Amino acid sequence: MAPKKHDNTLFPVVMAGGSGTRFWPLSRHSFPKQFLPLASSKALLTETLERLGNMALPKQCYVVCGKKHLSIARKLLPKVPRGNWLAEPQARNTAPAIALALAHISKKNPEALVAIFPADHHVANPKALRVCLQKAMDLAQQGHIATLGIIPHRPETGFGYIRRGEALGEEGYKVRAFVEKPDEETAQKYLASGEYFWNAGIFVFRADVMLEAFGKHMPEVAQALLRIRSALGKTGAPKVLEREFRKMTATSIDFGVAEKADNMAVVPADIGWHDVGSFQALEEVKPRDDNDNVSCAHTLLEECKGNIFWSKKRLVAALGVENLVVVDTEDVLLVLDKRKCQNVRTLVEKLRQDKKLNPYL
Amino acid sequence: MAPKKHDNTLFPVVMAGGSGTRFWPLSRHSFPKQFLPLASSKALLTETLERLGNMALPKQCYVVCGKKHLSIARKLLPKVPRGNWLAEPQARNTAPAIALALAHISKKNPEALVAIFPADHHVANPKALRVCLQKAMDLAQQGHIATLGIIPHRPETGFGYIRRGEALGEEGYKVRAFVEKPDEETAQKYLASGEYFWNAGIFVFRADVMLEAFGKHMPEVAQALLRIRSALGKTGAPKVLEREFRKMTATSIDFGVAEKADNMAVVPADIGWHDVGSFQALEEVKPRDDNDNVSCAHTLLEECKGNIFWSKKRLVAALGVENLVVVDTEDVLLVLDKRKCQNVRTLVEKLRQDKKLNPYL
Repeated sequence: MAPKKHDNTLFPVVMAGGSGTRFWPLSRHSFPKQFLPLASSKALLTETLERLGNMALPKQCYVVCGKKHLSIARKLLPKVPRGNWLAEPQARNTAPAIALALAHISKKNPEALVAIFPADHHVANPKALRVCLQKAMDLAQQGHIATLGIIPHRPETGFGYIRRGEALGEEGYKVRAFVEKPDEETAQKYLASGEYFWNAGIFVFRADVMLEAFGKHMPEVAQALLRIRSALGKTGAPKVLEREFRKMTATSIDFGVAEKADNMAVVPADIGWHDVGSFQALEEVKPRDDNDNVSCAHTLLEECKGNIFWSKKRLVAALGVENLVVVDTEDVLLVLDKRKCQNVRTLVEKLRQDKKLNPYL
Repeated sequence: MAPKKHDNTLFPVVMAGGSGTRFWPLSRHSFPKQFLPLASSKALLTETLERLGNMALPKQCYVVCGKKHLSIARKLLPKVPRGNWLAEPQARNTAPAIALALAHISKKNPEALVAIFPADHHVANPKALRVCLQKAMDLAQQGHIATLGIIPHRPETGFGYIRRGEALGEEGYKVRAFVEKPDEETAQKYLASGEYFWNAGIFVFRADVMLEAFGKHMPEVAQALLRIRSALGKTGAPKVLEREFRKMTATSIDFGVAEKADNMAVVPADIGWHDVGSFQALEEVKPRDDNDNVSCAHTLLEECKGNIFWSKKRLVAALGVENLVVVDTEDVLLVLDKRKCQNVRTLVEKLRQDKKLNPYL
């Protein structure tokens, strides 16, 4: 593909449709993780756009989220215009969500430069992120679907990896393969090789390039996208959206497009990225005291080590405890062994199964 | 002393002036331990009189407590008449508090049979208590100052002991000595000997007998008592009380009288007594689940063992934790290692020293 000269305006699209369970009871059905100030004093969603700095004006930014979360989400990003808030009729994973945003953006500018961001991650070094995004934009202008590949610093087994192929100038590499979460030994090899990056779900592409990729790898999505786009601004638009959204396969952009497309590029990114995957993440994104306690709360501690405390209202007093996570909310108090952060979902599962406990979901 | 025939009406006096720190944040300056429902659904203070059953009508019952606690305390025992609530001008330990009650009771009946009860203990077997009290009343009618001696079931080093002397019929024994808290080895010997009992602070005596004992061992208390008594019902009474109460030595009835008097008697008591001395006591007075968790709260537990949970309002969810005490109150949340229950006072000390934290005291 020969490089063309395009409009370099970036249209960021934030995927805010998630509804995780690992931050219960902070996160709830009605208030998922991306709305929580987990890494700073601002919600992860708010951080996601603010860290772009001057790269995009609010009127260029789009947010896709669940219908029932729309009103909360809007309060967190008041500058994003009403028309840029896109409510998913149902949660159908990222491919349909991206198609929905593309319908809107490509109607304005069929060759618009689009960047997809998950709403629930943290980036400690936004400046480095912006440098990487600039490279990704350059690759996108050349017709690639670019993704940021996070340079790993540990043999993580919890993420999918991206293997780089041949270099594409100084901007990045062709993608050789997307690979599944590895076991410990494989992860060690990936780390040592320098050829593998973490897949952070950040994609940059031209609208027309992604529409073509949809047409090739998820044709039903491409068709639905075009019908939704044609209806925009007309009286029947909501009904068309409702009907067409349902027709799109509920899958991720990774599985539906990225793993199959032959024009994928990766930009190595060392940006202090963190997926903020469980309460234990707070140890990495929040400051610790001399005894490795993280206090997102007013605390009074005596002989305490390696704990994580979270409370908005109450004083948390602790004496002689180690490696606990203590989360205090209006109606639920959670105390858990820090090593069991991944198992919070078992509690949530119990809440689901017990009707009397449903209100705590 | 020859036995005389006296009026057998019992006047229970509850000592409710305590202000412990080991149940913080449940207990506060303004709401001490005796007002808490630590052993049942009722406050320890309420239990203290209710367990006497038919032995005393409410109009015979007296409660001595701090001025600032009077209004809370009265709500817990609404049947006790207003005139039977005796406010200490200052906290001056049990000897002056008992003298204050004696001033009131002996004015009505100089030979009244009086029983002193701490307000903050638990008795699992009230029926057995009443049998012991009957014996103590018999000994008191004979001119003894009788005390209940709790039959020990373990070599406790945290309590003072009473050593029995010669038998006094079937009711009990003369007291040979009051002895200090022993070390572990000594406590073992006490337990093995069968001659030692725990001092539970329960005393039964005739008003005139105690007045005489005060005259002998704490003459300034006896004089103050008589002046307070003379002023009762007169306009100057509050001023006299204020002035005379201050003159009495601030010491316990144990140290001021019981350890010195030669007419002390002890009634061995196996009544399921518990001093409810710290959060750990809840394990003994409240039911446990199959994993030895005590839940004075609505709980959702997964892989939890040997914990104590207390919350009035919130759901307490816990995962993978052991031997913790978790106490949730309106404004403070406390999490501590169960083995450190005695050290809660170090937290309270810190609150005292930090003006910003004073409101939590």
